[in-house]
Amino acid sequence: MKFLLAPNSFKGTMRSEEVSQIMKKAILSIDPTAQIIEAPMADGGEGTINTLGRIFEMEYFQTIVKGPLGKPVRAKYGIIKGHIGIVEMAQAAGLTLAKPDLDPMHATTYGVGEIINALISERKIDKLLIGLGGSATTDGGTGMLSALGVSFKDQEGRTFVPDGGSLKDIRNFDDGLLQKKLKGIEIIGLCDVDAPLLGEKGAAQVYGPQKGASPLGVKLLEEGLDNLNRVIIEEKGMDYSKTKGAGAAGGTGEGILAFLNGKLKPGAETILESLGFDKLLEGVDYVFTGEGKIDYQTLQGKGVYCVIKRAFNKGIPVIAICGDLGNGFEPLYAKGLTSAFSTNRIAQERQAMKARAPIDLFSTMQDILRLIYIKS
Amino acid sequence: MKFLLAPNSFKGTMRSEEVSQIMKKAILSIDPTAQIIEAPMADGGEGTINTLGRIFEMEYFQTIVKGPLGKPVRAKYGIIKGHIGIVEMAQAAGLTLAKPDLDPMHATTYGVGEIINALISERKIDKLLIGLGGSATTDGGTGMLSALGVSFKDQEGRTFVPDGGSLKDIRNFDDGLLQKKLKGIEIIGLCDVDAPLLGEKGAAQVYGPQKGASPLGVKLLEEGLDNLNRVIIEEKGMDYSKTKGAGAAGGTGEGILAFLNGKLKPGAETILESLGFDKLLEGVDYVFTGEGKIDYQTLQGKGVYCVIKRAFNKGIPVIAICGDLGNGFEPLYAKGLTSAFSTNRIAQERQAMKARAPIDLFSTMQDILRLIYIKS
Repeated sequence: MKFLLAPNSFKGTMRSEEVSQIMKKAILSIDPTAQIIEAPMADGGEGTINTLGRIFEMEYFQTIVKGPLGKPVRAKYGIIKGHIGIVEMAQAAGLTLAKPDLDPMHATTYGVGEIINALISERKIDKLLIGLGGSATTDGGTGMLSALGVSFKDQEGRTFVPDGGSLKDIRNFDDGLLQKKLKGIEIIGLCDVDAPLLGEKGAAQVYGPQKGASPLGVKLLEEGLDNLNRVIIEEKGMDYSKTKGAGAAGGTGEGILAFLNGKLKPGAETILESLGFDKLLEGVDYVFTGEGKIDYQTLQGKGVYCVIKRAFNKGIPVIAICGDLGNGFEPLYAKGLTSAFSTNRIAQERQAMKARAPIDLFSTMQDILRLIYIKS
Repeated sequence: MKFLLAPNSFKGTMRSEEVSQIMKKAILSIDPTAQIIEAPMADGGEGTINTLGRIFEMEYFQTIVKGPLGKPVRAKYGIIKGHIGIVEMAQAAGLTLAKPDLDPMHATTYGVGEIINALISERKIDKLLIGLGGSATTDGGTGMLSALGVSFKDQEGRTFVPDGGSLKDIRNFDDGLLQKKLKGIEIIGLCDVDAPLLGEKGAAQVYGPQKGASPLGVKLLEEGLDNLNRVIIEEKGMDYSKTKGAGAAGGTGEGILAFLNGKLKPGAETILESLGFDKLLEGVDYVFTGEGKIDYQTLQGKGVYCVIKRAFNKGIPVIAICGDLGNGFEPLYAKGLTSAFSTNRIAQERQAMKARAPIDLFSTMQDILRLIYIKS
């Protein structure tokens, strides 16, 4: 029997490598002769840099930058092939770093800009991949852009560093310094979701609440992003707000499109391509994937969704093991998901379950395997 | 594909018939041509009377009796074959009736005695089955015995109705009236567990805590049951405390042995026999069982355990779907359990999960079925 393990991370609980290792151990406990291919993955969010580091030979670096709520954090970045920079936004602006004190009106991507500064002063690069996802921020990337040299100005002409709450005060900007600094570097944002900037599928309305925004907060964030977009239209003559991924990572996608002349790509697809995923699927009997939570957002291009689609294309059953099976994940079945199982083996609230998650994941895998092996 | 559905109840959430119906609906949603045999079961506890009523033709009656904490409750009882009385203790002294105000020092089996009184004044019977299980009480059955005419006396010679807290005050008793009343009636207690009366596997220490007893409460209940047993030894010259099932339903097993000259039988086994369960298993591909919670107690002769053993004897895979997969259920795998799955699909505390349980059970069944049907 041949298994392919392609889990995403259980955010704040287990990295995708840990999930994959536990899955492997559980399979071998039931069938020591099983063939197992491990392909723990990422989708632009948390874990992207480690995943790319396993696929390519990566030089790792670290630097101290401003965290999502101002407190300094140690952030990792990397260079592959000597000339491609890799930045993971979650390292500097991640939801995991901000918890439990979420504050979407003040959370900033400033540290992401600082990582990029460190990277380009470390080495001359001609390509930069930025993993967008898992952020605590809804600042449209303006914090990052400020660190890179953009001056955002309010109606009195004063320069300030915008955050979610003050996006509405931007009247114009000067990005001359930035354009000079990043000249000759091709920039690609790897998006974990294909959300547009605004509206009911946008950065504020869909992702605001999980970043701690109240209903009023969501409204203010939406107004702020809308203002940023209007200023961009005025100054650049382009409306990027409907581009897929513009709303990724609290609108950082928009910032990358408008200011960095960057492109956005679906992170999961890009990483699966890099992994040679379709080739890994050859001869596989079952694919296991999973994530801390799946829900309607999973269908917006997240890793689990992409794994399911590719397994389905080859006619291979794919089983998702998740912490929570949230609202609206069910359309995944029509896309190729065989079965979904939760690791929650008793009824307790999230914090208590997180502590047990590795063991519960192991046990749940064993129960699924026993069922599979009955018939083989 | 042929399925046998033999779930126990999800106590306080779904009756075993409801669980079975949901399981059936889920199977038919995946395979409308599946053959399904429904055998929702009971083990002496909650649901025993309904289960026996489905197996045999039963006349149902009801009466108002004292509930576990004194408040009147409507209790069902039955007569089969015109001469066998059926009493379910949980109808008058059940944990579900007492929740959320558990009070093991005062909870009483008095109403169980009242049901028996109603039954024998309704019809002349020569056999009486009493389902022992799911009780809120730890009174050794003394409440029931008091209602049936036993006078328990304290050291001043005063008659009183003992409860868990006052078992320690019993000095002697007079059961002449009882012996006259129940003359010619063969009495059988159907036990959901094979626990002895006392000690670390006994009524107080194992079951006290789930009935609301604090560590001190458990100690007092143990002393009370021990005193009851000593008085029985003095008066009857027999020590029943080590008999299997003496500790069932808070020591009601002991009361049935010592005062009613009754016998104790494992409830689940007796009901599976009555169901002709081994015959139902013929040609079955998968057995589904389940309960609100499985844990180390399940191995003490509970329904799920008996279903697993019988399926295993015929080499049929058996899957348990439960609310909680609690501590220490794992030895069930060696006894024949194929896989266990929890219905908890998100991390929330019990009360919230109960409300979702029917839908979660349905979805979990579907996920298991999809996995089974991949290979068929």
